[in-house]
Amino acid sequence: MSYTAPLKDMLFVIDELADIEKVATLPGFEDATLETAQAVLDEAAKFNGEVLAPLNFEGDKNPSTFSDGVVTTTPGFKDAFRQFGEGGWQGVMHPAEFGGQALPKLIAAPCIEMMNAANISFALCPLLTDGAIEALLTAGSDELKQRYLPKLIAGEWTGTMNLTEPQAGSDLALVRTRAEPQGDGSFKVFGTKIFITYGEHDMAENIAHLVLARTPNAPEGVKGISLLLVPKFMVNDDGSLGERNDVHCVSIEHKLGIKASPTAVLQYGDHGGAIGYMIGEENRGLEYMFIMMNAARFGVGVQGIAVADRAYQLAVAYAKDRVQSRPVDGSAKQSVTIIHHPDVRRMLATMRALTEGARALAYVAAAYSDIAHHAADADTRAQYAAIYEFLVPVVKGWSTEMSIDVASLGVQVHGGMGFIEETGAAQHYRDARILTIYEGTTAIQANDLIGRKTVKDGGAAARAVLAQVDATLAALKEHEGAAFDAMHRRLSAGRDALANVVEFVLANMKSDPNAVFAGSVAYVKLAGIVLSGWQMARALIVSTQKRADDPSFHGAKIATAHFFADHILPQALALEASIVSAKGDEGVLALAVDQF
Amino acid sequence: MSYTAPLKDMLFVIDELADIEKVATLPGFEDATLETAQAVLDEAAKFNGEVLAPLNFEGDKNPSTFSDGVVTTTPGFKDAFRQFGEGGWQGVMHPAEFGGQALPKLIAAPCIEMMNAANISFALCPLLTDGAIEALLTAGSDELKQRYLPKLIAGEWTGTMNLTEPQAGSDLALVRTRAEPQGDGSFKVFGTKIFITYGEHDMAENIAHLVLARTPNAPEGVKGISLLLVPKFMVNDDGSLGERNDVHCVSIEHKLGIKASPTAVLQYGDHGGAIGYMIGEENRGLEYMFIMMNAARFGVGVQGIAVADRAYQLAVAYAKDRVQSRPVDGSAKQSVTIIHHPDVRRMLATMRALTEGARALAYVAAAYSDIAHHAADADTRAQYAAIYEFLVPVVKGWSTEMSIDVASLGVQVHGGMGFIEETGAAQHYRDARILTIYEGTTAIQANDLIGRKTVKDGGAAARAVLAQVDATLAALKEHEGAAFDAMHRRLSAGRDALANVVEFVLANMKSDPNAVFAGSVAYVKLAGIVLSGWQMARALIVSTQKRADDPSFHGAKIATAHFFADHILPQALALEASIVSAKGDEGVLALAVDQF
Repeated sequence: MSYTAPLKDMLFVIDELADIEKVATLPGFEDATLETAQAVLDEAAKFNGEVLAPLNFEGDKNPSTFSDGVVTTTPGFKDAFRQFGEGGWQGVMHPAEFGGQALPKLIAAPCIEMMNAANISFALCPLLTDGAIEALLTAGSDELKQRYLPKLIAGEWTGTMNLTEPQAGSDLALVRTRAEPQGDGSFKVFGTKIFITYGEHDMAENIAHLVLARTPNAPEGVKGISLLLVPKFMVNDDGSLGERNDVHCVSIEHKLGIKASPTAVLQYGDHGGAIGYMIGEENRGLEYMFIMMNAARFGVGVQGIAVADRAYQLAVAYAKDRVQSRPVDGSAKQSVTIIHHPDVRRMLATMRALTEGARALAYVAAAYSDIAHHAADADTRAQYAAIYEFLVPVVKGWSTEMSIDVASLGVQVHGGMGFIEETGAAQHYRDARILTIYEGTTAIQANDLIGRKTVKDGGAAARAVLAQVDATLAALKEHEGAAFDAMHRRLSAGRDALANVVEFVLANMKSDPNAVFAGSVAYVKLAGIVLSGWQMARALIVSTQKRADDPSFHGAKIATAHFFADHILPQALALEASIVSAKGDEGVLALAVDQF
Repeated sequence: MSYTAPLKDMLFVIDELADIEKVATLPGFEDATLETAQAVLDEAAKFNGEVLAPLNFEGDKNPSTFSDGVVTTTPGFKDAFRQFGEGGWQGVMHPAEFGGQALPKLIAAPCIEMMNAANISFALCPLLTDGAIEALLTAGSDELKQRYLPKLIAGEWTGTMNLTEPQAGSDLALVRTRAEPQGDGSFKVFGTKIFITYGEHDMAENIAHLVLARTPNAPEGVKGISLLLVPKFMVNDDGSLGERNDVHCVSIEHKLGIKASPTAVLQYGDHGGAIGYMIGEENRGLEYMFIMMNAARFGVGVQGIAVADRAYQLAVAYAKDRVQSRPVDGSAKQSVTIIHHPDVRRMLATMRALTEGARALAYVAAAYSDIAHHAADADTRAQYAAIYEFLVPVVKGWSTEMSIDVASLGVQVHGGMGFIEETGAAQHYRDARILTIYEGTTAIQANDLIGRKTVKDGGAAARAVLAQVDATLAALKEHEGAAFDAMHRRLSAGRDALANVVEFVLANMKSDPNAVFAGSVAYVKLAGIVLSGWQMARALIVSTQKRADDPSFHGAKIATAHFFADHILPQALALEASIVSAKGDEGVLALAVDQF
């Protein structure tokens, strides 16, 4: 159960589809050339393949344990985390000022993918730390930044996001945790937080908990939520660790997957109050949290791609090894390896096409984010920011939804062996299942896509993306052959389906919001399929032009794009039908609550 | 985590769609009226809800264990199995001559569904015993029948199916287990069998293993396989148990799901040879095994429906209980139970529609099987047998594929809680995952649907089914309203897609078998969706006519049929596109083995 990073595909996307040379022209990213990307990715592939990947199955078999307030991670995790920190991997995309490497998201994204493919349970810890770093960079005081960022970025300390409470899951308006000012600028925090990933563990010296809480007299609902930093150990002025703070892990969950990653229930203030520090302004916590969330959501989308790729690699290895049955076309008298059977080939091609399509879309989105943050002129920044923001719920929603299907196909390729835990395929099926839930369920992504990303700007960002798809469609027209014909026909139909749904959402949001939201998840999937297909179409064009340079690689790219066109893109029409038929009394809500 | 059998829907299907009154006119089934069905189902609902359902989660938490050759099942299972036997539940559809109740499959099917919904791990034991009974009835000598059937049918002993060996999974031609004649009519069996469900356990006094093996000088391949009965304990002439036979469990598997059901590795003949008895004629074992398999495949299809329904019930209960967020249409100022949110409603409606559609198709198929076995004239028998045989791989393939999606939606409805094992939703997601694999993977069902069920008769059975769909389409035309319009449009399109694919299969089977088999699983899904939709259309007609009798029930049926039309049936077109585009060098096999 090894993991080999798909460096060639990653670099192809970075170079040809996400256009790293353009990113390298941005102020601050001058060194972020293709050569830099290649060097960083090579190192990442080595570290993740050699250090983290071998611990993945072990972590599932021998998960984190809880005893008497202490969480002990899987043997090997602590040492791996030390190597991770020493290698500078936490700092890839963070500012040089605090010890980071200040590389673009376009280079960080494949690093994140590799780490999650190698070991998703391990990778969750750095992913959450990234979120904490992001929040501090955005809104933290200089003092908090100086005190915490260097340690977090060095991978010495870790960070957490504390949103959920028993009564407050998707609906953060219901948060009840209290933060009482102490008069010295600090607060005392009281409350219970659940589902806190790496809320307690033994891999780092200290943990910076970022906690949503209410100050006294804060307005009700989401406008009265503040964001506080509550360290596990107090930090002295000289940076050394002081007393243990009053935040304690009271249990960890018994989960379906990502078992090595401890999911903690944290109790704040049971012994007098946990000392916390306000991040940014009071009552603006949700806003800051959304900045972290957007970064984390993109990261979870990449997790989907990562798990899908790992499941694919395992399935391919099995299919090339397992001998069973003669070929249906009579081309051999003997039993053959099962990769020769058309249905197995179809499953593997489906896994591959979905993964490559989602990867391409995510990396392109990462480049947009880089431009949105670093372009010299404000118009360009705003324009790319709008498209990136539109793509975030699609990358998160679609990459994770498809990862469940891909992991399930991975089990299926293994036949009966897939159901046996020792094979490893089942772990991916279990691990993937959280991805459509945490950092906002697919429905929450869909609400975001509809409300903030489609309706709020009157469909402008959506239409800007569609215009780019149109440009690709026009470029497809300049080529001939079966793959181009299929891609043009299917992508064109998919594009129209997506355009129709955007108009449907805009037209009905006010008059029939139930109908619009009933199709919200289908809208995310539709956008994911069509926009992944768009990237596959772009790859088809590039690989056709460059085929002679590397016939096997580009030939595979062309075949995969063709497969995507015929086998994945047609689903767009079914999704469109489901969405636009939801209107009226006989629509999706016709079945009354008491009829269920 | 209780289970309430959906008696109303079951009886609706039995009465209105599967036409039990017609079955009750068949010779031998005179007592099998709707009243009988109702009485049996009421009792089954009680037994399964009260005795088996409470043990389901317990079995997952505390699975069967293996130690020193002995398998100990979950506490409570042994006693439940005693009650199961005493209640006569193993004998529901078996001949009165051997102690059974001789009821039609149409009444047995809902009993099997209930048992599997209540506790799929438990239900596997009777399911396999049904297969052994079926094989003995088909081909067993009178002596074997007299010695084994009364005990098996009484639920005192259990049966197993021993097909798989390490090198022989889907491809039974590779079976190596040997059966050496002893000159006294018995054989000595030597070999290793894996993946044997309830291959060893403590619930019954004896186990009758049905084993595929080769006699000396048997032809190679599938034509040299015989079927033998190997008892765990020898059976004396007076029916009492004799010595322990030389078949031993050497381990059980660590599985993703159905954990309470022990999956054994059995070693035959390590201590001199396991005594076995030939069932039927030598070298015809595979043929007999296929009789069992067809029955078992139908049963596994029903398992899919069962797990889907249980997952649905759990998700509905959670959605009616969990309060989170205000409604999107502004109809309440307070947070509401999540069933009020359109996306949750859509997920629940999807789960319900898929489950009801698959149930209706399976029960209708069961009635066809009853007619195929019991009709007075041979033509009717042959006609119904052909359609039933066509439907078996569809019921098995589609009901199990959809059950994975339904169980996954069940997790999603629960949000973060769905990922916590104590909630119970994750168990269904894990349990369902075996269903598309055992008793023949979906690809194996698909091969059967293509080879034996579509091509062999030149498409006759397929066209007979399509003609029935056409009759329903004509009947839909006689009604008006949005539900009928939608159903006619979508079912008509689905019917055409299915008809096109049947012709595609027939036209290309010889010239391009790879293309045909590449789309085989999509063909199973397409048939499952269209034929489930056909049954939902029939339900729509009946419920519209009878709406006044029970407005809530029939109203829900109408709404669910309408939902099926708009949200499920459109997938037919995507499947068709995927199938018919697979032809030629640039088709599904364009990606060469070494490019994966």
